[in-house]
Amino acid sequence: MTYAVKSTLPDADLKTVGEALQGELVDLVDLSLVAKQIHWNVIGPRFRSIHLQLDDVVATARSYSDTVAERASALGLPPDGRSSTVAATSAIERVAEGWQKDTDAVRTMVKALEATIGGARERMRSVGEPDPVTEDIFIQLTADLEKHHWMFQAENGS
Amino acid sequence: MTYAVKSTLPDADLKTVGEALQGELVDLVDLSLVAKQIHWNVIGPRFRSIHLQLDDVVATARSYSDTVAERASALGLPPDGRSSTVAATSAIERVAEGWQKDTDAVRTMVKALEATIGGARERMRSVGEPDPVTEDIFIQLTADLEKHHWMFQAENGS
Amino acid sequence: MTYAVKSTLPDADLKTVGEALQGELVDLVDLSLVAKQIHWNVIGPRFRSIHLQLDDVVATARSYSDTVAERASALGLPPDGRSSTVAATSAIERVAEGWQKDTDAVRTMVKALEATIGGARERMRSVGEPDPVTEDIFIQLTADLEKHHWMFQAENGS
Amino acid sequence: MTYAVKSTLPDADLKTVGEALQGELVDLVDLSLVAKQIHWNVIGPRFRSIHLQLDDVVATARSYSDTVAERASALGLPPDGRSSTVAATSAIERVAEGWQKDTDAVRTMVKALEATIGGARERMRSVGEPDPVTEDIFIQLTADLEKHHWMFQAENGS
Amino acid sequence: MTYAVKSTLPDADLKTVGEALQGELVDLVDLSLVAKQIHWNVIGPRFRSIHLQLDDVVATARSYSDTVAERASALGLPPDGRSSTVAATSAIERVAEGWQKDTDAVRTMVKALEATIGGARERMRSVGEPDPVTEDIFIQLTADLEKHHWMFQAENGS
Amino acid sequence: MTYAVKSTLPDADLKTVGEALQGELVDLVDLSLVAKQIHWNVIGPRFRSIHLQLDDVVATARSYSDTVAERASALGLPPDGRSSTVAATSAIERVAEGWQKDTDAVRTMVKALEATIGGARERMRSVGEPDPVTEDIFIQLTADLEKHHWMFQAENGS
Amino acid sequence: MTYAVKSTLPDADLKTVGEALQGELVDLVDLSLVAKQIHWNVIGPRFRSIHLQLDDVVATARSYSDTVAERASALGLPPDGRSSTVAATSAIERVAEGWQKDTDAVRTMVKALEATIGGARERMRSVGEPDPVTEDIFIQLTADLEKHHWMFQAENGS
Amino acid sequence: MTYAVKSTLPDADLKTVGEALQGELVDLVDLSLVAKQIHWNVIGPRFRSIHLQLDDVVATARSYSDTVAERASALGLPPDGRSSTVAATSAIERVAEGWQKDTDAVRTMVKALEATIGGARERMRSVGEPDPVTEDIFIQLTADLEKHHWMFQAENGS
Amino acid sequence: MTYAVKSTLPDADLKTVGEALQGELVDLVDLSLVAKQIHWNVIGPRFRSIHLQLDDVVATARSYSDTVAERASALGLPPDGRSSTVAATSAIERVAEGWQKDTDAVRTMVKALEATIGGARERMRSVGEPDPVTEDIFIQLTADLEKHHWMFQAENGS
Amino acid sequence: MTYAVKSTLPDADLKTVGEALQGELVDLVDLSLVAKQIHWNVIGPRFRSIHLQLDDVVATARSYSDTVAERASALGLPPDGRSSTVAATSAIERVAEGWQKDTDAVRTMVKALEATIGGARERMRSVGEPDPVTEDIFIQLTADLEKHHWMFQAENGS
Amino acid sequence: MTYAVKSTLPDADLKTVGEALQGELVDLVDLSLVAKQIHWNVIGPRFRSIHLQLDDVVATARSYSDTVAERASALGLPPDGRSSTVAATSAIERVAEGWQKDTDAVRTMVKALEATIGGARERMRSVGEPDPVTEDIFIQLTADLEKHHWMFQAENGS
Amino acid sequence: MTYAVKSTLPDADLKTVGEALQGELVDLVDLSLVAKQIHWNVIGPRFRSIHLQLDDVVATARSYSDTVAERASALGLPPDGRSSTVAATSAIERVAEGWQKDTDAVRTMVKALEATIGGARERMRSVGEPDPVTEDIFIQLTADLEKHHWMFQAENGS
Repeated sequence: MTYAVKSTLPDADLKTVGEALQGELVDLVDLSLVAKQIHWNVIGPRFRSIHLQLDDVVATARSYSDTVAERASALGLPPDGRSSTVAATSAIERVAEGWQKDTDAVRTMVKALEATIGGARERMRSVGEPDPVTEDIFIQLTADLEKHHWMFQAENGS
Repeated sequence: MTYAVKSTLPDADLKTVGEALQGELVDLVDLSLVAKQIHWNVIGPRFRSIHLQLDDVVATARSYSDTVAERASALGLPPDGRSSTVAATSAIERVAEGWQKDTDAVRTMVKALEATIGGARERMRSVGEPDPVTEDIFIQLTADLEKHHWMFQAENGS
Repeated sequence: MTYAVKSTLPDADLKTVGEALQGELVDLVDLSLVAKQIHWNVIGPRFRSIHLQLDDVVATARSYSDTVAERASALGLPPDGRSSTVAATSAIERVAEGWQKDTDAVRTMVKALEATIGGARERMRSVGEPDPVTEDIFIQLTADLEKHHWMFQAENGS
Repeated sequence: MTYAVKSTLPDADLKTVGEALQGELVDLVDLSLVAKQIHWNVIGPRFRSIHLQLDDVVATARSYSDTVAERASALGLPPDGRSSTVAATSAIERVAEGWQKDTDAVRTMVKALEATIGGARERMRSVGEPDPVTEDIFIQLTADLEKHHWMFQAENGS
Repeated sequence: MTYAVKSTLPDADLKTVGEALQGELVDLVDLSLVAKQIHWNVIGPRFRSIHLQLDDVVATARSYSDTVAERASALGLPPDGRSSTVAATSAIERVAEGWQKDTDAVRTMVKALEATIGGARERMRSVGEPDPVTEDIFIQLTADLEKHHWMFQAENGS
Repeated sequence: MTYAVKSTLPDADLKTVGEALQGELVDLVDLSLVAKQIHWNVIGPRFRSIHLQLDDVVATARSYSDTVAERASALGLPPDGRSSTVAATSAIERVAEGWQKDTDAVRTMVKALEATIGGARERMRSVGEPDPVTEDIFIQLTADLEKHHWMFQAENGS
Repeated sequence: MTYAVKSTLPDADLKTVGEALQGELVDLVDLSLVAKQIHWNVIGPRFRSIHLQLDDVVATARSYSDTVAERASALGLPPDGRSSTVAATSAIERVAEGWQKDTDAVRTMVKALEATIGGARERMRSVGEPDPVTEDIFIQLTADLEKHHWMFQAENGS
Repeated sequence: MTYAVKSTLPDADLKTVGEALQGELVDLVDLSLVAKQIHWNVIGPRFRSIHLQLDDVVATARSYSDTVAERASALGLPPDGRSSTVAATSAIERVAEGWQKDTDAVRTMVKALEATIGGARERMRSVGEPDPVTEDIFIQLTADLEKHHWMFQAENGS
Repeated sequence: MTYAVKSTLPDADLKTVGEALQGELVDLVDLSLVAKQIHWNVIGPRFRSIHLQLDDVVATARSYSDTVAERASALGLPPDGRSSTVAATSAIERVAEGWQKDTDAVRTMVKALEATIGGARERMRSVGEPDPVTEDIFIQLTADLEKHHWMFQAENGS
Repeated sequence: MTYAVKSTLPDADLKTVGEALQGELVDLVDLSLVAKQIHWNVIGPRFRSIHLQLDDVVATARSYSDTVAERASALGLPPDGRSSTVAATSAIERVAEGWQKDTDAVRTMVKALEATIGGARERMRSVGEPDPVTEDIFIQLTADLEKHHWMFQAENGS
Repeated sequence: MTYAVKSTLPDADLKTVGEALQGELVDLVDLSLVAKQIHWNVIGPRFRSIHLQLDDVVATARSYSDTVAERASALGLPPDGRSSTVAATSAIERVAEGWQKDTDAVRTMVKALEATIGGARERMRSVGEPDPVTEDIFIQLTADLEKHHWMFQAENGS
Repeated sequence: MTYAVKSTLPDADLKTVGEALQGELVDLVDLSLVAKQIHWNVIGPRFRSIHLQLDDVVATARSYSDTVAERASALGLPPDGRSSTVAATSAIERVAEGWQKDTDAVRTMVKALEATIGGARERMRSVGEPDPVTEDIFIQLTADLEKHHWMFQAENGS
């Protein structure tokens, strides 16, 4: 790896932070694609409600994927968000193709959000010492993902 | 394929139009990921100019991918925009990883746009007869993609 | 019929296009009244969701009825959108009076949209030769109506 | 009449208020259609001025028809704004078809507004005792209608 | 009570109007707290729809509580909206703690709105003679509260 | 007086309502001039606060003077807001010229608002029977003027 | 005259500039009242067109009267915009009361603007030497008044 | 002609499309200049109405001239909008200098629009086969120009 | 306590974080009611300044009470913001009733903010270990509360 | 020359000012066409930057050409901005046709701006005595043109 | 000094204008720093009012410092706004450190504004002959500074 | 140092946090002046791109200098942002005067940002223990400064 952009962190810290950012980038890009997939394929009596709610998830995922990738660049690490990399390394399980009943759609989103939150929480812990600036980004994105997580759980609550 | 949503087109036409929409969806989602990838990795004296110009491409690609996928849904065909599908079937060649000099970045985008425009023009011809509504969407997205194509060519013109 | 506004089309073409525009105007005005009627009378657990979704249909129908009527005027044909004309010639079947359960409301809208789309698709074909300008208006309104059609079908999908 | 929504008014008052709201709804929907009809058909040297002025009437009529219908619903009375009902029971006389000279158009609107104001003033008196909330809505719509009435009279004044 | 702000009403009228305004203020502040409580605790398939609808009630209650309190101040009467006063004198019954199923949430809101509307209608009658300005405020807030009342009833209608 | 605009009220009622509207128009125009005069001449430690507060009064007075004058026109009565008429018939006492200490400025405004409110309350009573539409305008402007009245009293309160 | 606000100009210059600003203030306040008077009283076939055009004049006159008065204050000269001062010293002739035919209304405005422009041009010359800052304000307001002057002349041109 | 920007069309098609775009660009630029010329010179009782109406034509002409020129660039054809080219090749006849009575102004615009529409309709037909993207632009601008054509005819209609 | 929403934290941590969030919610709701109470009752020469400044506190308190309550829900803990709970458990001392001199009003707010900040700083420390996401929310609300605290102290500074 | 609009300047002054305004109008209209020409034809690595910068020049030139022409009208002088007049009398030299390298494009703009500024500075001096209002317009447009002039020089600076 | 940007003024004039612009730039940058310093350090009963008023001064000073510096660049003179230059050559006396009572804060601002206005008025006279464009900028900034000067004097007026 | 504003931190912590805030304030004010200096003096082919990019840095520096200074005030520490203090204690090296080639300008900014980031990262560590609220502000400003740092490095990357 050439250092076209000089980092403000020492090399050991940079490795830890770089892996966390790259892993998170892939999960967030995939989350945005999964949410769009269900946005287009959901059916059932709650169609409109969930169709709209999913676009809120897309907005969150797109916005943080940009923040995370540009944080990597700011630290001198070229981010990788290509479709082949996303398909090969995402922590989110491949979702079913075709129409999805609204109840299933909600369950699928709860699982996808759980996978994303799990990774984010681990990375948040690992970067706290080497780089509090990156930690702060993970804290904020976890807060927003957990809010979506609650809302989808509440949808199927009883 | 179950017909959860009843189509307003006969089955033969539906097959032609469905393949065109699915192919276009994959290319547009991949174009948005490619443009973001370079947005984050470009370096060189034209960094800021191209960094901003790429977000215009991202906006175009995201907006039309939504239009195309919802057109498929409106015709009773569940669209597939999952990362694995995009990685496996996109017409755009995988781009290099890591930092990219601005001159290379421009060339990469010209090629990615050429691949996307090529597919869109073929599909525009194929759907004209069975469904002019879908044809109109292809005409509009081709106009926008060709405008981006000119602008990136002009960047490296001499 | 006196020609207060001089048309840019020959008389034979004018007749075909004029009938298409007049028929479409009536259907769109009626669609806006039907959607408002259900907006006010729907009851049941999906009340708020459908109450809001119906106003999107009203907005589409009102906007295109204005476009269609002014296209007729631009061609020298006085449009007729009086309530008596709408009541007598609309392609949409009279809807039931009084409160409507949400499930019934969705079915009523699917049928009303089917009737409107059926007419619009026929007219789109008939005006393509004599006046591509009018054809373009029909293409766009069909795209929007078919999107509403999908969304109401998805609501009752299973 | 079934009582799906429980009213906060006693039955006798409800009958008086219900008839007033239903009558007003019909007049306002018809006023909006009449104003659009002339908006499309008016000709003459004041064409543009009146074409615009009529859309102000349309906005007023559409806005209050929504207020009146939702007031009826709030009191437990399902409103009826279907095209057949409007055509059969509107207090506004059927307007002529085809082009209208601007001077005639103004006269037509003065008459249509007079008819609407006459009904609204009667209803305003009748509902004052049983339901001041409804009376307040009638007071406000009468104020706006009388302002349009003045403006159209002023147009032909001398 | 000292008269730091001089009233434009005679003392007898002031007493009647003052009691009406103070009673209304307490009910409206409590309504805003009750609606927020359920906004946070509702669960079930209609979660998102009702979660959003409740914030419309909060906005109504907050806006009118400010209008009512400032009307009291304008008449020279210091308003009392402290939490202890609200807890002790509100007309709305204390709601259950913890998660609430959506069906129960709707019922709770119907009851809370009924209690608020009942008080508002009585006060509207009592202030009409001494102060039509205050009466006008009560008329408007009753109209808005009754619209929310209808919408929550329609949610559980059948 | 010629009747260029035909009124919807009988002549006796018209006289009562016309005098009320003309009297109110003059007071409101003068109030806007008085508030601007002090806006420009106030000095002292509360300069900025009162300078801004006075522009809120100007906005209220200008907006209602337009409403009141156009209500007169709507009833067929030409309004008179000329400077000579305002100077000769306003109920507000002429204010002192030159710089004004902030404490004096507040007292001047309390008196000017009292004079305006006194007239408005009388007129509100007188027009209630002949024209409830005009009464409603007086009710609303009194509410706003009394709010300003409180705020200026509170400024000098102790 | 006490100098509560210390001027940045010598006393002789101050007298010249002060008289110019006070004279201009009075003319602009009166222009705003005259334009509103005709806005309310104009009748005839061009009613709507002129009714709107007059509010453009009102906006210009109100905005510059504020600028001029605050310029006086900034130089330590308390401005006088009271209704009695305006009625006694305005350069604009008192306009007729009652309804005005549109042709007369245009003539009245041409005369009122001529009177205002005449004074402004003289004052612009007199303050150029002692205070270029004030001169600049007069230049800008003359430009805008002369534009209105042209537009009202063009209205009656032939 | 050098090919700095590579076209996506074959050479023969390019020639046809290029001539159409260049011809249209000239007519639209000239139309915007003609409309501004009359906008500044029109006089008479309908001054304001036509003054405003002409700016709508200006907006349309400027907006489409940009679209047309950038479409040429996108196809690899450098557009030519210089004043000398416009003066030499525009299809619109030179208009008279000096003030124009409103009636004459309307006639002038009807003729200018007829000339522009004639060219646009021919070009729309010629480019349909070689390039549907360009055809779509012509369809839309023709629709807009024909609407202006109607409105100016309606102004002098009887 | 039933776990309708599944938490992402272990039970022991959940108890600590839950108590912190519930305590903070009550203080923030009460702070919003206290600030509104003084907003309505303040008198004296600084009336307008403090009246406005208090609405900034209300906005802060309302916004963070929503964030805090929804964080509790997201962790599976139903929040309690009922008026009886607020009155019984708030850390802010009950404020005096009736009009308040501006100097007293400032002192009251300094004390109320001190009480709220004291609690928030303790809770910020206690949740740092079990849940950094909640800690981040406390850090931000403390920053904003301390800014208001400074501003009210500065008001009475000497 | 007939005086349809009466001027507020004496005839000798009018001649001087009229020639200055007519000359400036022509140069500004041509500057707007030149800037658009290069906007469409520029190529090279700075394409996007200069493409955008040129539209800023177009905006300046269009806005001031309108101001200058309407100033002429306001003084009673009909302006002439026809394409033939612009082509024959513009002070800007005809620019080359076809693609332009970015370095050449910048040089072309520096020259075009120099020509325009030269004329504007001369006219600014000539009108200062007869009409300071027109002088002020020339001062402002010169300031803006000189700012563009600096920016294009800075682009090629070394 | 190298002339990277070619000036449109002769060398002698350039020296006069250059010194005026450089002197003004330094004073305006320092005024913005002084106003921010007091914005952060003011205490006392008028805290909020003056805290806000000072940000209006900051906005004025920042906006004109940019205009003045870019005017120097436009004339080919590189401006110098570095902190060392500002500290060494500003005409504003160094203000006291630490908290400032509101009365003192107002006096400090009156003195700082007087120093800035004094310099600006001298420079306005000196550049009038060589460059009226620069003179116009000085006239406008003097007008705004004198308005702030009045407002701070009025604050301590008696 | 007098304690006009009472702190919520103990004295030892206050000293650490106070030095960090004062040091950061000076660096941020100087960064804003340095960025403006180059904004005005940059020349070369990337002029426009860097001219705009520098205003993004100015906006960041101004916004955080306000946040940092007001945080000091909130903790009872009067901040010092006077020009003499900035010139004497900034960590950023004095930049060269006069025009700067774009390549040099980029290098100057990379160095200025490095100096600012170095200080900010040290202070972020030092305040973490005594005051997490201040630490949070440092984390956010470091994130933004490091993003600008990347972007300027990318500009000169190869």
